[in-house]
Amino acid sequence: MDFKKTEEQELLLESLRELIARDGSEEYFRECDEKHHYPERFMKALLDGGFGLLGIPEQYGGTEVDNLTLMMVAEELTKAGVPSYLYGNALPVDDMLTFGSEEQKKITMEYVKQGIMPFCLGFSEPQAGSDSSAIATTYTRSKGKVYINGHKTFITGASRSPYMLCMARDPAATDPTFTMWFLPMNAPGITVEPLPKLGMNMVDSCEVYLDNVAVTEQDLVGVEGKGFVQLMKNFEIERLMLAAATMGAAECAFADAVRYANQRLQFGKKIGQFQLIQEKLTYMAIKIENMRNMIYKTAWEKDNGISIKISSALAKLYCAQAAFEVIDAAMQILGGIGYTTDHRISRLWRDARVQRIAGGTDEIMVHIAGRAILKEYAK
Amino acid sequence: MDFKKTEEQELLLESLRELIARDGSEEYFRECDEKHHYPERFMKALLDGGFGLLGIPEQYGGTEVDNLTLMMVAEELTKAGVPSYLYGNALPVDDMLTFGSEEQKKITMEYVKQGIMPFCLGFSEPQAGSDSSAIATTYTRSKGKVYINGHKTFITGASRSPYMLCMARDPAATDPTFTMWFLPMNAPGITVEPLPKLGMNMVDSCEVYLDNVAVTEQDLVGVEGKGFVQLMKNFEIERLMLAAATMGAAECAFADAVRYANQRLQFGKKIGQFQLIQEKLTYMAIKIENMRNMIYKTAWEKDNGISIKISSALAKLYCAQAAFEVIDAAMQILGGIGYTTDHRISRLWRDARVQRIAGGTDEIMVHIAGRAILKEYAK
Amino acid sequence: MDFKKTEEQELLLESLRELIARDGSEEYFRECDEKHHYPERFMKALLDGGFGLLGIPEQYGGTEVDNLTLMMVAEELTKAGVPSYLYGNALPVDDMLTFGSEEQKKITMEYVKQGIMPFCLGFSEPQAGSDSSAIATTYTRSKGKVYINGHKTFITGASRSPYMLCMARDPAATDPTFTMWFLPMNAPGITVEPLPKLGMNMVDSCEVYLDNVAVTEQDLVGVEGKGFVQLMKNFEIERLMLAAATMGAAECAFADAVRYANQRLQFGKKIGQFQLIQEKLTYMAIKIENMRNMIYKTAWEKDNGISIKISSALAKLYCAQAAFEVIDAAMQILGGIGYTTDHRISRLWRDARVQRIAGGTDEIMVHIAGRAILKEYAK
Amino acid sequence: MDFKKTEEQELLLESLRELIARDGSEEYFRECDEKHHYPERFMKALLDGGFGLLGIPEQYGGTEVDNLTLMMVAEELTKAGVPSYLYGNALPVDDMLTFGSEEQKKITMEYVKQGIMPFCLGFSEPQAGSDSSAIATTYTRSKGKVYINGHKTFITGASRSPYMLCMARDPAATDPTFTMWFLPMNAPGITVEPLPKLGMNMVDSCEVYLDNVAVTEQDLVGVEGKGFVQLMKNFEIERLMLAAATMGAAECAFADAVRYANQRLQFGKKIGQFQLIQEKLTYMAIKIENMRNMIYKTAWEKDNGISIKISSALAKLYCAQAAFEVIDAAMQILGGIGYTTDHRISRLWRDARVQRIAGGTDEIMVHIAGRAILKEYAK
Repeated sequence: MDFKKTEEQELLLESLRELIARDGSEEYFRECDEKHHYPERFMKALLDGGFGLLGIPEQYGGTEVDNLTLMMVAEELTKAGVPSYLYGNALPVDDMLTFGSEEQKKITMEYVKQGIMPFCLGFSEPQAGSDSSAIATTYTRSKGKVYINGHKTFITGASRSPYMLCMARDPAATDPTFTMWFLPMNAPGITVEPLPKLGMNMVDSCEVYLDNVAVTEQDLVGVEGKGFVQLMKNFEIERLMLAAATMGAAECAFADAVRYANQRLQFGKKIGQFQLIQEKLTYMAIKIENMRNMIYKTAWEKDNGISIKISSALAKLYCAQAAFEVIDAAMQILGGIGYTTDHRISRLWRDARVQRIAGGTDEIMVHIAGRAILKEYAK
Repeated sequence: MDFKKTEEQELLLESLRELIARDGSEEYFRECDEKHHYPERFMKALLDGGFGLLGIPEQYGGTEVDNLTLMMVAEELTKAGVPSYLYGNALPVDDMLTFGSEEQKKITMEYVKQGIMPFCLGFSEPQAGSDSSAIATTYTRSKGKVYINGHKTFITGASRSPYMLCMARDPAATDPTFTMWFLPMNAPGITVEPLPKLGMNMVDSCEVYLDNVAVTEQDLVGVEGKGFVQLMKNFEIERLMLAAATMGAAECAFADAVRYANQRLQFGKKIGQFQLIQEKLTYMAIKIENMRNMIYKTAWEKDNGISIKISSALAKLYCAQAAFEVIDAAMQILGGIGYTTDHRISRLWRDARVQRIAGGTDEIMVHIAGRAILKEYAK
Repeated sequence: MDFKKTEEQELLLESLRELIARDGSEEYFRECDEKHHYPERFMKALLDGGFGLLGIPEQYGGTEVDNLTLMMVAEELTKAGVPSYLYGNALPVDDMLTFGSEEQKKITMEYVKQGIMPFCLGFSEPQAGSDSSAIATTYTRSKGKVYINGHKTFITGASRSPYMLCMARDPAATDPTFTMWFLPMNAPGITVEPLPKLGMNMVDSCEVYLDNVAVTEQDLVGVEGKGFVQLMKNFEIERLMLAAATMGAAECAFADAVRYANQRLQFGKKIGQFQLIQEKLTYMAIKIENMRNMIYKTAWEKDNGISIKISSALAKLYCAQAAFEVIDAAMQILGGIGYTTDHRISRLWRDARVQRIAGGTDEIMVHIAGRAILKEYAK
Repeated sequence: MDFKKTEEQELLLESLRELIARDGSEEYFRECDEKHHYPERFMKALLDGGFGLLGIPEQYGGTEVDNLTLMMVAEELTKAGVPSYLYGNALPVDDMLTFGSEEQKKITMEYVKQGIMPFCLGFSEPQAGSDSSAIATTYTRSKGKVYINGHKTFITGASRSPYMLCMARDPAATDPTFTMWFLPMNAPGITVEPLPKLGMNMVDSCEVYLDNVAVTEQDLVGVEGKGFVQLMKNFEIERLMLAAATMGAAECAFADAVRYANQRLQFGKKIGQFQLIQEKLTYMAIKIENMRNMIYKTAWEKDNGISIKISSALAKLYCAQAAFEVIDAAMQILGGIGYTTDHRISRLWRDARVQRIAGGTDEIMVHIAGRAILKEYAK
């Protein structure tokens, strides 16, 4: 075994840290958050720094790295206070590069190269949250066109993305067959309404109403009826990416808390000298250590062709909970200051909470992992 | 033993529920919260309904009720979605009616009768959070005047209150002696700056800079040098009031969650049929039961002359944590909807977090209760 | 509301404390536990002291008290180190006095008056643990006799009780109908084998093999086919009794831990001066307070005709977990000493664990309470 | 990074599994536990299999392996139900081989080669548990002899070991200076009394009274006054070994629980189909994953010359708690069966509890890690 980063990884992360120090100040992100602005300038800097194409196959102009390195990059970003939901395009883009048509790939890469996420993911619906099979959006063919009707919800980035990768069902089929379509978001019949949210303010999560949106057969993505199979390809590693990003936020909060405990005086001494603070820091450190180990190992497993069905669900579940606990403990150490929006802890805290809901709730992770564990032992 | 509310209590709470149904809609509070407005209309309705003078001695025109009933009123309010930090003036007002001069009492009651909190509490300072003895604000006498200098922070309601009950020290005294002063907030030398906060948006928490604020000997409250003794009189029961109010918020969230679990369908059944949801509801119910029992019993102890030094600290600690946990579990049950600001869960969640910090942090409660328990057994 | 014990309750508990001080020494119980002896002498003392007939209707020679008082008695016993599983006969005896024939009642009371538990409860079976409806023991009639065949397990006290209240099914019935029978334990065909256990050493838990055990129609208890309905009559309050007894054990451990923290010196001071110890004691005190409030209130509800379906399940679940946590924290405070069998903490710890399994597991409590809560809100 | 075991490690573990399958049956260990017997036969098999000299330098006839491999061996043993406190001699032996005289080394290796732990560790005393500096055992010189007086407690293996590595202080020194002595346990003046314990039944933990025990200058170990420095050399990695062994016990319990959940039927289905069981298994799997990652990584750090001051304390704290939680959850899944001593879960459960106390309590781990974290960030 070997727990050391490679020299390449160290150099990459070092250059990322420099980029963040230059272009990703806390003031900047606080302002973006307050104004609900997408941090365009910073995303542009990431692109210019070569991080925008990381993880995308070379044949499409990307910079190939393994999943482990992608996780480290996500962690490094959020460790520096960058919102955890900003990064991680490589994986959905990879899906499109696998299943998309030549035209779809071309469009995708054109946007990616400009630092624009080419499409939002159109899966969840009011009645299809944890239960994806309840998707009610339909596609029907009529006179050479395909008409899509439905209501998508919590669609991250819908107000900015030029396209949507939209999952819909064929109402005529006896067995439910789900198919992915590539919808231009400026097509007639599409209405987008951002949802007001507790956190994740730099990107919108939207209601998207699809009213007889017309596409053509060329807009089908992959194989008809194979929408879910395609969706699943990178699903597990995408969950791990969410976990990695939220872990970084926990590391950010931890560092803030330790620094504060080393400075803040009460009752004539540094609060870090109190056992109740030391205890918090100790358990925070344990959780961070656990998260990091889980994520690195699971990414390594993926890179080495080992199934991550169980391990990615465990990592998603653990990290979403543990990261929030770490940030919450940091807020407790910072006291009133942590409750003000002047300090980033309050933003990290609001943002982190969504991770136990988005990308598969805690309960769905138990559902996936629990049954898979039983099955493994039943062999 | 008897765990039944009296008929008078039932009637009082019933009339309060009617008042809230009429004047305290969720839409109203959401709007106040979004706009950072004080809910004047609702507070006026409370005053008109006779709740504004509850707990204040009859001789001052109030309606005397025991502490137990005050807790029930606080619970009933927040159970209906009213922010937990809005109620509870009776207790600080009671302090003033105990220690204040005739003139101070008169001013106090004039405002109370108009539904205005007459004074904010000027205790915490940047370097005096948990450690009250670190208060650095000074008062110095010069030519018949008393000059107050210092910097107060997290002063709730400072931007609206006509007065501040301000704790200051005599820099000339060898032993630190703290004295309370009654400061008109419009006096020259006072600057008030609201702090941007994660929650509790309907009242400001402010920085207050006191720059040579001049008062007179008539503005001294109670006895010089006895500021802390006076402060302590109602401290324990005030903490219990915080606990009661945050408990009500948990009950509000619980009811929302149970209703949702009874309606929301996923995987072809109501989500309430899943054990993972039943488990959450069961532990939420346990916590609510525990909180309520603790608060009622501790209030009863206070009403019956039993020391609540330990029990009030236990109640504050437990309720601040358990209430947040209940609300957090409710958010998890509501999923994405609970993360939007369209649903009150997200407001309850932001607001509840402060209770583990304000009015004595969790850590201070352990400090108080832990030592007192040891002392009791050392007898 | 009123949280005060009555004078009668105080006197009763005072006399119980005196009895325990005289007849229930820790040395005695430790020896009984080590030797796996039933504490006959102490149980005789309880009988002589009038506690053996407490809670049994006067018409049968008992001393009627309400359920609340019964809980206090159970608590007081275990608070003094008496094993939590020793007391609580009044409730099953009450079942027999309700449903039994005159002859059965006579037998029951004869034994009760000698301080002997007249019957063990023959419900659980290898395949019928949480799922009572899986009971496979049968009764079949043949030539004026009734033959009982089956295998009971975890039957507490089977090796000492003169009778068993045995649940069996009629294999001929299409709907499963369960009926209670009153089996003399010395009947031919009964084999009893004590199970080796982790704790609860003063009473046996046994395998009971029933091989063509012959009884007569006179041995039927109550109404044929109504076995479960009869079983359910006192079930909820019996669970509360388990909760009360385990709570007392937690109070016993708490007192031991506080005393130790007040004496034990390490690093030049009493360990009670360390925040990590104060924190443990504080949360232990909170849990004890919560348990006591829950139990007293639920017993009061039962005494006042209020349904305790939900509250008794919540109390059983909470107390079984919280009591163990308190005892476990006490062990941690006592360190190595608590891990030796010289100190009663190690016995309390082993004994308390069973409460999360016996009398309805944690999981069954969630099942009962969770669904009942949902139903209540669905109204 | 690389999370794969080497081929050598795999082969070693495979041969260990075979050895255990042959010589380490559950029946055998249950019997040893019940009778409080040291499992001589199994320890002999380990020695014959080449595992007894693992981790000992080749120059002394051992088989050198890195710490990572030692952890894997400890894990593999306890994963198969072997008591967690049996293995791990290599590290204290290594201390002796580092600091001991030629004669001491010779004696040590003679015993090791027979599969006998050459010495017990004589550190803790009634007043010196967490606070090692309170050691009161003295050594005084008189007429060419050194006399040792004191009272050691919780000395594991004292009744079997031929020697004790005994820490004592020089009462004449002004600064407390601690020195290690090599005491033959059959020396006059030594009395050994096994302590009755909750678990760890296959080895004694003893009181050792040292009454004017005479040794010579040749029995000094290492350098006079450097006792603590010497003690500390392998302390951290020894703690990690405890953590690894208790983790294996958790893996053992987990496997038992999953198998049971796959077989046990209740309510007409396998209990593994219930979400409450799936949830337990999921969190158990997470904890095992976390423990394993922590231990492997920390051992790797040690092997690579990286400080493990913080990481070993975190691992000890986390593993001692998490392993017990996993075993406790396994007991809950097994229900009544897990509470009988027929099933090994009850033994694992009793044994695991000591890990939060022995080898440094949870509280001491917080003390070590908390301060070290603060210091690291203060740089």
